[in-house]
Amino acid sequence: MAPVIPPSAAKTHQVVLMEKARAAASFNTSELSCLIYGSAEAVKQRRGAYDRVETQLGTKDTSVLPRIYGNMDRERAYQESLEMGTIAFQDGIKHGHNFFSEVTPRGIFANASPIGLNILLFIPAIELCGSAEQRAQWLPLAKEGKIIGTYAQTELGHGTFVRGIETTAALDTTTDEFVIHSPTKSSTKFWPGGLGFSSTHAILMARLLVGADDHGPHLFMVQLRSLEDGKPLPGIKLGDIGPKLAYNGVDNSFAVFTNVRISRLNMLMKHTTIAADGTYTAVPNHAVLNYATMLRARAIMTRIAAFQLAQATTIATRYSTVREQGAGSNGTEKSVLQYKHQHFRILTLIAKSYGTFFASKYCTTEYEKVMHQQEQGSLSGLPYMHSLSAGLKAWATGEAADGAEDARKYCGGHGFLMISGLPDLVASSTGMVTFEGENYVLWLQVGRYLIKCVDTLVQGKKLHPEMAYLSDGSTYNAGPGAVNGVCEAQGSAFLDQHVQLDIYRHRATRLVHAIHKRFRGSSKTPEEAWNQHMLSIITAARAHIEYIVLRAFAAHIHHLEGTISVSLMNILATLCSLFALSHIINPRTVDALVNGLLEGLLPEAIALTDAWDFTDASLCSALGMKDGDVYGTMMRWVEQLPINQRAWEHNEGVYRPGWEKWIDPILKAKL
Amino acid sequence: MAPVIPPSAAKTHQVVLMEKARAAASFNTSELSCLIYGSAEAVKQRRGAYDRVETQLGTKDTSVLPRIYGNMDRERAYQESLEMGTIAFQDGIKHGHNFFSEVTPRGIFANASPIGLNILLFIPAIELCGSAEQRAQWLPLAKEGKIIGTYAQTELGHGTFVRGIETTAALDTTTDEFVIHSPTKSSTKFWPGGLGFSSTHAILMARLLVGADDHGPHLFMVQLRSLEDGKPLPGIKLGDIGPKLAYNGVDNSFAVFTNVRISRLNMLMKHTTIAADGTYTAVPNHAVLNYATMLRARAIMTRIAAFQLAQATTIATRYSTVREQGAGSNGTEKSVLQYKHQHFRILTLIAKSYGTFFASKYCTTEYEKVMHQQEQGSLSGLPYMHSLSAGLKAWATGEAADGAEDARKYCGGHGFLMISGLPDLVASSTGMVTFEGENYVLWLQVGRYLIKCVDTLVQGKKLHPEMAYLSDGSTYNAGPGAVNGVCEAQGSAFLDQHVQLDIYRHRATRLVHAIHKRFRGSSKTPEEAWNQHMLSIITAARAHIEYIVLRAFAAHIHHLEGTISVSLMNILATLCSLFALSHIINPRTVDALVNGLLEGLLPEAIALTDAWDFTDASLCSALGMKDGDVYGTMMRWVEQLPINQRAWEHNEGVYRPGWEKWIDPILKAKL
Repeated sequence: MAPVIPPSAAKTHQVVLMEKARAAASFNTSELSCLIYGSAEAVKQRRGAYDRVETQLGTKDTSVLPRIYGNMDRERAYQESLEMGTIAFQDGIKHGHNFFSEVTPRGIFANASPIGLNILLFIPAIELCGSAEQRAQWLPLAKEGKIIGTYAQTELGHGTFVRGIETTAALDTTTDEFVIHSPTKSSTKFWPGGLGFSSTHAILMARLLVGADDHGPHLFMVQLRSLEDGKPLPGIKLGDIGPKLAYNGVDNSFAVFTNVRISRLNMLMKHTTIAADGTYTAVPNHAVLNYATMLRARAIMTRIAAFQLAQATTIATRYSTVREQGAGSNGTEKSVLQYKHQHFRILTLIAKSYGTFFASKYCTTEYEKVMHQQEQGSLSGLPYMHSLSAGLKAWATGEAADGAEDARKYCGGHGFLMISGLPDLVASSTGMVTFEGENYVLWLQVGRYLIKCVDTLVQGKKLHPEMAYLSDGSTYNAGPGAVNGVCEAQGSAFLDQHVQLDIYRHRATRLVHAIHKRFRGSSKTPEEAWNQHMLSIITAARAHIEYIVLRAFAAHIHHLEGTISVSLMNILATLCSLFALSHIINPRTVDALVNGLLEGLLPEAIALTDAWDFTDASLCSALGMKDGDVYGTMMRWVEQLPINQRAWEHNEGVYRPGWEKWIDPILKAKL
Repeated sequence: MAPVIPPSAAKTHQVVLMEKARAAASFNTSELSCLIYGSAEAVKQRRGAYDRVETQLGTKDTSVLPRIYGNMDRERAYQESLEMGTIAFQDGIKHGHNFFSEVTPRGIFANASPIGLNILLFIPAIELCGSAEQRAQWLPLAKEGKIIGTYAQTELGHGTFVRGIETTAALDTTTDEFVIHSPTKSSTKFWPGGLGFSSTHAILMARLLVGADDHGPHLFMVQLRSLEDGKPLPGIKLGDIGPKLAYNGVDNSFAVFTNVRISRLNMLMKHTTIAADGTYTAVPNHAVLNYATMLRARAIMTRIAAFQLAQATTIATRYSTVREQGAGSNGTEKSVLQYKHQHFRILTLIAKSYGTFFASKYCTTEYEKVMHQQEQGSLSGLPYMHSLSAGLKAWATGEAADGAEDARKYCGGHGFLMISGLPDLVASSTGMVTFEGENYVLWLQVGRYLIKCVDTLVQGKKLHPEMAYLSDGSTYNAGPGAVNGVCEAQGSAFLDQHVQLDIYRHRATRLVHAIHKRFRGSSKTPEEAWNQHMLSIITAARAHIEYIVLRAFAAHIHHLEGTISVSLMNILATLCSLFALSHIINPRTVDALVNGLLEGLLPEAIALTDAWDFTDASLCSALGMKDGDVYGTMMRWVEQLPINQRAWEHNEGVYRPGWEKWIDPILKAKL
């Protein structure tokens, strides 16, 4: 084996650059961390949990090549993720926390563990859709890991379009059972995480059939395999669906059911019930209510998207701080972060990660409000919440995926290496674009809600308070000379938060009313008109959500006034302003203002990313090492690669399997 | 082992849909294939080559899970690619063709084979920069595979910024040798494909040192390892740089040189020479001339980008044709390609793939023109060619990467599966954005050229003929009421190709002149002004290249007039028009015209992608199977996954390594 280069005692040039950049901040990083995680105590607890789990996993020594970058085929990746998931899950049980229910010690989404859906979807589905008896029976088991569950909705032929689900659950009144069955190839359950090898149970979505009646999709608790020996129960075929762009530690899987019998009492019965004689009852909107698990998951995904974007941005910011390139004629080099295009790109991503995070806090607050109202018997907030969680999920995951990929590209060639940590972040964030509701479908759902809102206005009725802004629509008529119908603000007035909010609100209102007019005024059938105007509907939905995000970002900062230091307040206000202005295209005055904001934030870049408090082990990135020792870490890790260790056995430097079978014969071939 | 589902004899619903869609075309697919590959004979030869290689590789039977989707760790991936590369390379030698020098039988870039750079960079570098004696000595060896070469330019600390290269080649006049040395950690050669284990030689870029003189980067032929036993020569340390986003079959590598001696005659001496006494001579512009290999590679990359985009689009088009989703209230389903947002997205990608391809043909023609002029002693075309290849490379690879990712997203969740073929296409096309010149750096090079062009105009001198359009700049002054300074065309006039070209030319001219004025008029130092205006410079450079692409696309079609059928001519003209209009934002009239073009092209979608003539084995995509049997292929492949085969041994359905070590203990844990 070739000796591994030991970490150098002397500080490298890059480490010095990093220390300097870190010291340049005008605010206290810890104060911002506390704001993100809720309190100083929460930050401390979170650190403790990471420390314990990373110690147990053996990932704390960052001079050692992370195992995931070694020779990991699919099966080893699965076992590695099982280990990480188990240790994190059990740490949560032992210490009573849920730090790892969304973001894991490998820096990525709960989907990165084969048992992650137990927490993200299985337990919530029982809580939200199970009857009192069902909750009492199943929740303790799932929470303590006595059973491990997943959530099985999507099929080979249908994903986001729930009404197309084909799996059936037919009531057999003679035995008081449901018969679960996959009637076609396209009805094969396909995609659920952990379904193939890791879960014992699933909440399964299937069409409820009672005699000749098809009541549509309902949820059922189905035991998949023996708790004793792990074998699938009779009639259930389970298997993995193969390697993916990311999450290869998870057994995303398929399942085929052949007349599998479960008790009638296994249908989730909070919102719908089925009696032994087949009598079916359902509360109003039961389909939407049974969908609450997905609604909750989407709200969480907005927060996860913020973390993913923040992680990618942290890596890119750190590397851009210590990576130097020639400036031009005089041959001196400077940090690439100082080049305007990099400076602009990185800082706008930082602003976006905070904007997304604060919007996700707003989403959670609204979700809790709606759940509380629902317990009081009111469903009036549900349509807004549905559109909010769909729209924020679509916006946040789309922006995070694009932003993470941008961050990767900003790292040049090295961002293409797995050891940069970025390919995995890009791939796992881009997966979110289609998980739990494909974004284009979600945008259209938001659009449908917006059309209905304007219908409501037209009927002279009141809108949900959070949507009331649309009622100003009649006053906005962009004159023929107005570019994008924009307000009359000039120069530095664009820095005024009210002006910024006006611009976003105005744009959203204008686009929503315009598309409503075209859609409702069309002479075509609604279906044809909908298809014809689809692109404009999506544009309007995006404008609405972008206004909501900016409003939430600004309101959150406003709300903090007086509770945080002036220096932090200034930074957050500047970030919010940058977020707002970097989406407004092109007027020369705005460009100049953006340049001013960028200058102000440059010294804060490292502190703004440090504040997320990501550990080196969770970022798993040679480019994103907190100490800035990029080149040292890269070479140390690379030397430890199994393929190199194998080639350097006996100090040979030859990778024998390749040389002997292919290279040597080419050189000697007579063609 | 569980039995594998045999291909069904009956046509599935999806196969029927595909046949119908294929039959809908109004033109002859073969005619378009001949146009792409040059002639009917070329199409036939190409098919023969694919057939032989795929037969030898054993990839023709598409009911068998492609090996790359099985349990492939890094080392097995490397050997798999060696096999593919060797068979393809030797087929080219035996049958005298170069079908695989750019696109391989695995559907991706030459970089996908560990010996691919022998063809893409090593041989061309000798041809373009070697003296007559050097060419006579080395070319036959490289072409016959008696030596296998790579091209080693980038270092750990410097990639695209060539002047920052640190590796040194110091002349020792006492022994008539160069001493090749890596003086720092950041000077480690890093990234070259095949360097670690597969190549015997490299064209190395290093600073030429003669006594106290540093003549800057020059090219040297360096033997890396023994041709007998493959061992690295003394003083050379070689190794792989680890797993990447894509191209994991290639040993992208690092190399450290410790005072390695090579003959003085190993410097490439076409444009520069060094005498035994250290006397140095160089033709004017030798640095640019020595860079010709990269210039050629960029021209080729534009064509490769077109193929990559076409491959991703082919998969997405085929899957969107057979994937059905519910239309709304009446519960019927239709092909997702008929939904406007999918329809728009897919067809604009098809148009873009053809636009990129025809622009690459223009680039090749210009390259050959410049090389011919150069042989006649004229370098006047070089600056234009340099900016053209840089700009087209940046534009085409950026659009291909974004387009391939879009195509992946248009396939919903299934596009996240490796068996869709899309993750690999996305990852390999996104790599091109940074390979052989990071796109942002290239855009700035184009910008610098454009500034110089306007300087030339200001001095009253003539521009390169292809740039003459900029001299109309003075006549374009967008009035205060003009939106983006656009022309006065109305309604269907936007369908007029001349109007479209006017719009693109006008925009480019306006932006280039505007940024020239701001940059040259700045009171700051040139370096500061450059940094300040960087974003606008890139915008202007993009506008210029987009005009060039549209101009090349339109000119190519114009040139075909009379030589191809009217039906094909109509299709190509419609594609060109869609390409032009889909980049123009928003005016209502344009939206309506685009809708019209989309309607016209919908029945042609399958034929337009079939025309590229990609084999099923090279696309390696369950979603992109030519026959449309998506779900059948997916399930057949998934059943064959090694992890499933292992779990189903003895009909158990339990993946023992995971169950025994992790799941079972969780279920039994007492916490």
